Amino acid sequence: MAKLGVGVLGVGRMGRCHAENVRSRVPEAKLVAVADVDVEAARRLAADLEIEHSYASIEELVERKDVDAVVIASPSRFHLANVQAAAAAGKHIFCEKPLALTIDGIDEAIEAARRAKVLLQVGFMRRYDPAYAEACKRIEAGEIGTPIIFRSIGRDRQPPPLSFYQSGSGALFLDSTIHEFDLARWLMHDEVAEVHAFGGTLACPELVQFGELDAGMVNLRFSHGAIGNVESFRQSRYGYDIYTEVVGSKATLRVGYLRQTALTVLSGEGVSHDVVDHFLMRFAEAYLNQLRDFLRSVLRGSEPSVTGEDARQALAIALAAARSQRDSRTVLVAEEARADTVHSAS
Amino acid sequence: MAKLGVGVLGVGRMGRCHAENVRSRVPEAKLVAVADVDVEAARRLAADLEIEHSYASIEELVERKDVDAVVIASPSRFHLANVQAAAAAGKHIFCEKPLALTIDGIDEAIEAARRAKVLLQVGFMRRYDPAYAEACKRIEAGEIGTPIIFRSIGRDRQPPPLSFYQSGSGALFLDSTIHEFDLARWLMHDEVAEVHAFGGTLACPELVQFGELDAGMVNLRFSHGAIGNVESFRQSRYGYDIYTEVVGSKATLRVGYLRQTALTVLSGEGVSHDVVDHFLMRFAEAYLNQLRDFLRSVLRGSEPSVTGEDARQALAIALAAARSQRDSRTVLVAEEARADTVHSAS
Amino acid sequence: MAKLGVGVLGVGRMGRCHAENVRSRVPEAKLVAVADVDVEAARRLAADLEIEHSYASIEELVERKDVDAVVIASPSRFHLANVQAAAAAGKHIFCEKPLALTIDGIDEAIEAARRAKVLLQVGFMRRYDPAYAEACKRIEAGEIGTPIIFRSIGRDRQPPPLSFYQSGSGALFLDSTIHEFDLARWLMHDEVAEVHAFGGTLACPELVQFGELDAGMVNLRFSHGAIGNVESFRQSRYGYDIYTEVVGSKATLRVGYLRQTALTVLSGEGVSHDVVDHFLMRFAEAYLNQLRDFLRSVLRGSEPSVTGEDARQALAIALAAARSQRDSRTVLVAEEARADTVHSAS
Amino acid sequence: MAKLGVGVLGVGRMGRCHAENVRSRVPEAKLVAVADVDVEAARRLAADLEIEHSYASIEELVERKDVDAVVIASPSRFHLANVQAAAAAGKHIFCEKPLALTIDGIDEAIEAARRAKVLLQVGFMRRYDPAYAEACKRIEAGEIGTPIIFRSIGRDRQPPPLSFYQSGSGALFLDSTIHEFDLARWLMHDEVAEVHAFGGTLACPELVQFGELDAGMVNLRFSHGAIGNVESFRQSRYGYDIYTEVVGSKATLRVGYLRQTALTVLSGEGVSHDVVDHFLMRFAEAYLNQLRDFLRSVLRGSEPSVTGEDARQALAIALAAARSQRDSRTVLVAEEARADTVHSAS
Repeated sequence: MAKLGVGVLGVGRMGRCHAENVRSRVPEAKLVAVADVDVEAARRLAADLEIEHSYASIEELVERKDVDAVVIASPSRFHLANVQAAAAAGKHIFCEKPLALTIDGIDEAIEAARRAKVLLQVGFMRRYDPAYAEACKRIEAGEIGTPIIFRSIGRDRQPPPLSFYQSGSGALFLDSTIHEFDLARWLMHDEVAEVHAFGGTLACPELVQFGELDAGMVNLRFSHGAIGNVESFRQSRYGYDIYTEVVGSKATLRVGYLRQTALTVLSGEGVSHDVVDHFLMRFAEAYLNQLRDFLRSVLRGSEPSVTGEDARQALAIALAAARSQRDSRTVLVAEEARADTVHSAS
Repeated sequence: MAKLGVGVLGVGRMGRCHAENVRSRVPEAKLVAVADVDVEAARRLAADLEIEHSYASIEELVERKDVDAVVIASPSRFHLANVQAAAAAGKHIFCEKPLALTIDGIDEAIEAARRAKVLLQVGFMRRYDPAYAEACKRIEAGEIGTPIIFRSIGRDRQPPPLSFYQSGSGALFLDSTIHEFDLARWLMHDEVAEVHAFGGTLACPELVQFGELDAGMVNLRFSHGAIGNVESFRQSRYGYDIYTEVVGSKATLRVGYLRQTALTVLSGEGVSHDVVDHFLMRFAEAYLNQLRDFLRSVLRGSEPSVTGEDARQALAIALAAARSQRDSRTVLVAEEARADTVHSAS
Repeated sequence: MAKLGVGVLGVGRMGRCHAENVRSRVPEAKLVAVADVDVEAARRLAADLEIEHSYASIEELVERKDVDAVVIASPSRFHLANVQAAAAAGKHIFCEKPLALTIDGIDEAIEAARRAKVLLQVGFMRRYDPAYAEACKRIEAGEIGTPIIFRSIGRDRQPPPLSFYQSGSGALFLDSTIHEFDLARWLMHDEVAEVHAFGGTLACPELVQFGELDAGMVNLRFSHGAIGNVESFRQSRYGYDIYTEVVGSKATLRVGYLRQTALTVLSGEGVSHDVVDHFLMRFAEAYLNQLRDFLRSVLRGSEPSVTGEDARQALAIALAAARSQRDSRTVLVAEEARADTVHSAS
Repeated sequence: MAKLGVGVLGVGRMGRCHAENVRSRVPEAKLVAVADVDVEAARRLAADLEIEHSYASIEELVERKDVDAVVIASPSRFHLANVQAAAAAGKHIFCEKPLALTIDGIDEAIEAARRAKVLLQVGFMRRYDPAYAEACKRIEAGEIGTPIIFRSIGRDRQPPPLSFYQSGSGALFLDSTIHEFDLARWLMHDEVAEVHAFGGTLACPELVQFGELDAGMVNLRFSHGAIGNVESFRQSRYGYDIYTEVVGSKATLRVGYLRQTALTVLSGEGVSHDVVDHFLMRFAEAYLNQLRDFLRSVLRGSEPSVTGEDARQALAIALAAARSQRDSRTVLVAEEARADTVHSAS
């Protein structure tokens, strides 16, 4: 059987991770080419992975006939244009989150894929972490009864580089908390109806110049009555700490632990262990599973597991949270979705 | 040196715990008598503890000259009257929380103690748990830098009996979350300025008749900018789960674990252990430490560690949370304190 | 119903713990008197616990008609004589381990109790720890199938004071590892048939003068084929670490954890928590349960749960381990029991 | 720079793991070919990894000029012959443990590599696990003071297939405990001088026909006085449990944890989580690090990190343990090394 030809756009840490995974850990797929505006970096990655082709743009990449699907790991602000270019060339698309930075943008991306009849999947990789995947399965199987309380915390050891903020990607609720919002919808099997957020720039004074928060606390009300809370924090100092809990009427599920390695030190100062440093470590397996699932959906011609609609809904919650924090009031998620749709229609 | 004479009012589980502790684990104090409207129960406890005197009312108890201090562990709705009776008799007072059910009531209790020049301490026992006490000490010592995020969760295995609700004691934020509110003030060394609450009767339909919540989620904004969230849930089913976290600019502290015993079972089904069942187990040491501290404050004539003002402030936050949940809006804590004070002044 | 009168001999930390427990936490018993050669210390404890009588010797204590049972917590080398004195006076006896320091001595103690028709229980308190008790119950219920491997580790934070060694109580296998040997017999429901021990004075050079080990490692062969290993170490520096494991053909049970409090510190240096410091902390509940069980056996006139025979068997294993370490060979436990019995018979 | 050409012999699970790692995760190396007597399996793996060459024998593999190094992951009983073939062809060699099944065999392998001036590394992958590697580094840095006690446990969820035993590879101490023996030498920075072993066929009656143990418990005495114990068990049923501890005069290090995923289930039955299933999961990262280190040693022309001498010494300990168990006596490791050497010299 011929393998599925895959091109990877963007050869930063994220793109390299995807390229390596396609290269040797997805037998049904063949890594055809990588591309990056930093063409030298693209060439180096191609050499490391012993593939022949590297390019400076998505346009060159999608010109290739033997590329069936594209993995987009470029900076966020280019996602929408990249998706449109790939769709126009008839390539299936896996795009890192955020699919776009506005509801309108997401609608355009969805529409581009729809028109081109290509599959479009968005990178909410946590859904592919074995622990999260198992949690979802158990909830669907009714093991915890009715989900009642949702809680999710995402803390980075330290904030992204200032360049990330300069490029406009650093809005806390849109860039980081959006993972918690996606988990909320997915694990609760319900939509978030209303939010309330407090937030502040409490730990990283260097973010004040960008008007960005480093800490946010969002209360959630789900449409069937369940409640929840999610937190994002940019600078825990102790490590990358992802923790999610779904309390049900019969049992409770937790996903989260902190260890990087299996080493424990016991001394007169107590017992201690290290902490996971970074999302690429914590979610390495999830990234691989995600890619496999996407490529298998392409091969089977089935719907992707995480759709543009999922991206749209998570963004609407994030926008509502941002508005709540700014206006110090509760905000209905429908306000955001509608507001934007109206604007989009106008 | 003569020992401090102590009388205990109320011989339910809580009162028995206090009486046993006075009896043999606070050398400076002597258990003189116990009292309960169920005089037979009082008599039994006296026999168990080999003391001579048991009474049917606080009035009889405080008539005794050799009673210097009274521990009030009667039902909540009698607290205010009991405090007033003890103060009128010139006895020092330790009163279980809530000191009273309204801001006015608390003001009256404080005033009664002030006039009688007796010491009044309120039972926020968590402050005396070795883990919480150590956390507070470390925060004061600057070990975590500036406190930025506060989080606390309190879950019971199952709700209190319906009789508790029938007696009007079961308001979630006032009865249960109030412990989290007290911790918030104490550990953050700051006042809660504003709250937002979602809540529902999601797990215990039998509470609907009382109009009481079984789940509440409260966002907090502290006066110096820090943010937080507290949760209460009446029916975890898995156990009594108390978890508190203070995230600081330099480090983070957590208090919480779930084990009841040191046993772990490893089988084909995985690794499992049991869970603490009840607050009397989790906080046994805290109750003893609390009593010792109260009695030593009496002996030294020093201020109590947890004052009527602390009770007043925690209640104001709880009332604000209740209003926020009812009205679906953020509420300033000062609204509650003032509203009530105004009413009280009128 | 009249309460059982109890006298406590020895008012060190251990004796005080027993006295406090009798005083207020065993309703069926009444603390009548305490005794200690340090009569001033005995008087202070009596005052703290508000009881009238304190004595300087066991002879005075057992003279009292209202003393039905005696708790012996004197130094180890007096245990045998104290047991004989109590038995001669017809008092039921709870004696801290070791019951005696030789097989002969234990046989004499057993014989004294037998002749006096009094109940004799020995203080292997770990059996009363809720985790160990639950483990035993589950093993008896067949939950783990056939026990195959036994493992137990006992580490002190630091060695006992030198005075303990000067008094001859410090033999590692007889004083410390004996707890592991008792657990081995009790949890495996089998006898230890053969042992092999390595040991050394590796951490505490000050013990060399006494010829005592600070570290021992003992391989066990049980009579039905199971195998095991136990370790004792006098100076872990990090805390009091007790860990036991029974591997069965169907499942495995572990008893052990290290935390003193529920506090966790998370910082750039990692995640850390404190460690239990001392056996009185780790086994506080076990000491209370043990006393209750002993006193209830007396009240019911039933056999004690931990007998002189148990003490004898554990000592035989300890002596075999000591011989193995000295002679660098495997030793049959029956050698020790017999050797001593022969000697005793001669 | 030209990449190092690598051939992999054996395409079972272990060989596939190595081949995938060479393929895309070691940029300095290029996977040239794979070989297996099951040539169809070799062809499938080549197709999955998009490489051109697959062979039926090591002879064909080492004939290729562009193969600089060979990774041997064939069945154990072929290791020695494979090493000799690769050495004869002048290829650098990474060989899975055991290098050979006798001291003589190991000496022949070492000699073959020495004569051919090729680098020979043996697969004790645990040394490359981040936790073990960090432990070793800290011990070398003096962080725990003098190592005093060593303890290591290796338990499989279930025994290898019967075919493994039929092929003669299943000797417990030589196949499984040998990992603990290697860790003992490496982490204690000392040699094991004397051993005592108990063992039995306690859980897997199907092994009786092969005369093989399923449980072994080995006491260790190190040449500088430290003591230790290692355990192997073939059928824990709960999972793959690897646990190692080094107790030092100043602090203690532990390597070990059981979780497979980050999911925790909390219900009325308690708190539970899953368990690592298999060594390929637990040591996935170690296998990659090991391969990288080997290939970089080849590129640098430096000594390998784990030598034939290491394999020889671990085997001598394993043989001594086997003899101790058979003869029920302590055995000096030097007996084995010498006995065999003598035999080898004759």
